[in-house]
Amino acid sequence: MRIRLDLAYDGTDFHGWAAQPQLRTVQGELEAALGTVLRTPDVALVCAGRTDTGVHARGQVAHLDVEESLVEAAAGRSTLPPLDALLRRLNGLLPGDVRVHGVAEAPAGFDARFSALWRRYAYRIADAAGAADPLLRRHVVEWPRPLDVAAMNAGAAALLGEHDFAAFCKHREGATTIRKVLELRWDRDGVGLATATVRADAFCHHMVRSLMGCLVAIGEGRRTPSWAGEILAAAVRDPAVANLPAHGLTLEEVGYPADADLAARAEESRKVRTL
Amino acid sequence: MRIRLDLAYDGTDFHGWAAQPQLRTVQGELEAALGTVLRTPDVALVCAGRTDTGVHARGQVAHLDVEESLVEAAAGRSTLPPLDALLRRLNGLLPGDVRVHGVAEAPAGFDARFSALWRRYAYRIADAAGAADPLLRRHVVEWPRPLDVAAMNAGAAALLGEHDFAAFCKHREGATTIRKVLELRWDRDGVGLATATVRADAFCHHMVRSLMGCLVAIGEGRRTPSWAGEILAAAVRDPAVANLPAHGLTLEEVGYPADADLAARAEESRKVRTL
Repeated sequence: MRIRLDLAYDGTDFHGWAAQPQLRTVQGELEAALGTVLRTPDVALVCAGRTDTGVHARGQVAHLDVEESLVEAAAGRSTLPPLDALLRRLNGLLPGDVRVHGVAEAPAGFDARFSALWRRYAYRIADAAGAADPLLRRHVVEWPRPLDVAAMNAGAAALLGEHDFAAFCKHREGATTIRKVLELRWDRDGVGLATATVRADAFCHHMVRSLMGCLVAIGEGRRTPSWAGEILAAAVRDPAVANLPAHGLTLEEVGYPADADLAARAEESRKVRTL
Repeated sequence: MRIRLDLAYDGTDFHGWAAQPQLRTVQGELEAALGTVLRTPDVALVCAGRTDTGVHARGQVAHLDVEESLVEAAAGRSTLPPLDALLRRLNGLLPGDVRVHGVAEAPAGFDARFSALWRRYAYRIADAAGAADPLLRRHVVEWPRPLDVAAMNAGAAALLGEHDFAAFCKHREGATTIRKVLELRWDRDGVGLATATVRADAFCHHMVRSLMGCLVAIGEGRRTPSWAGEILAAAVRDPAVANLPAHGLTLEEVGYPADADLAARAEESRKVRTL
């Protein structure tokens, strides 16, 4: 059976999602906990968004394939349904910086990565002198200068839609850098807290942090709003665009189509990603 | 001149507010930073709520008395008004787990501790399986069983008003344990997050965590709502009432009267606290 996991983590003390020998990663911790609970060494997770070192998630989605008999055995004498028992046992084993919010049997055709229609990230900045909340400092970047949210939104308008985002992507030979940005908007949530919402079909490496670096240069008044469109059109990395720090970035949600369309969407994404 | 400081801290890595030799405390860090900026060894802070080890604050208030000439000298060549320059320099020096939100000249008669009319605390619990947000785990307690907020509020009703809270206080020879609880209420903020709001003229040592321990026993169904009033009436510590963990507790706000009433309020509080 295929299982869908919904999960959240504080990325501060992880070397990102992807398992790497000798390094503490989210995938590594989760596969180890699943291996213990399911009593099998064969646990391979596939996730919707492979977050970098220091990036957080509140709405990460992953899947794994496992024999149904192992899930039933893992539930043991619990009176809970087997997948609910699995959720409890996983959270009992996992360290406090990873929490599994949901465990469910995946519908036919579901693939956490390829069935996804979009990923939504938030980037959070505290930009008023002394307004930073120390309790949120692991996922909100403290910025020394005030940001003009309206100017950033004016710049963001040029980045919406389907474009070649090569200017905002770490170059990878043979990989397409064409992406469709569905939403890109800054909001002010209370005094001194500016939050960007960024939603796209997919993101290439460092893309969100690089988009944020471009818009924050506009928000500080160092650049005019038209700069964002100029950078995009140039289609090459510009050293004037900084990648903002990883810890302001949180994967908030992954969108999937209706169950009947999961398989078709997965087939379509596989083709595009391997262009 | 007397300066009022408004500040916030993540209590996780502090041994509470009050300065202690060899231990990292909020008062110790702040007095050291103020001493550096103001170039004086004579900095003595008085705060509104002396939080315990691990307790956080978003709305702590403190005052200090300082020669005006030192504040002007500290501002140096800054183009900002002297107190704004002091705020910036303090936050530049302080570690990320303390932030000063405001620095202002205190009105006549102001005393951060004795002029206060009330202190408001929040206590936060994540009580649904897997619903805990790892990004908030430093100030939200993960609870293994679901809590009945309505039952806790029924129990809380008996604790409102002026009472002898000896049953919820760590005994201190010669100190009164009479307090006036102005507000005590649990709310559910989204899935799996229960927040208590507790406001009183003042609190004795461990009082909030002990009130929370009593109400959570009711919320779990281990006790009926009438238990809270019975514990209060007994007026002695009952080992069945646990102190909940410190890290769920945050000092959110301190209330003061209108400027004209600050001095009278301070005089009145000094009498009551030294009964």
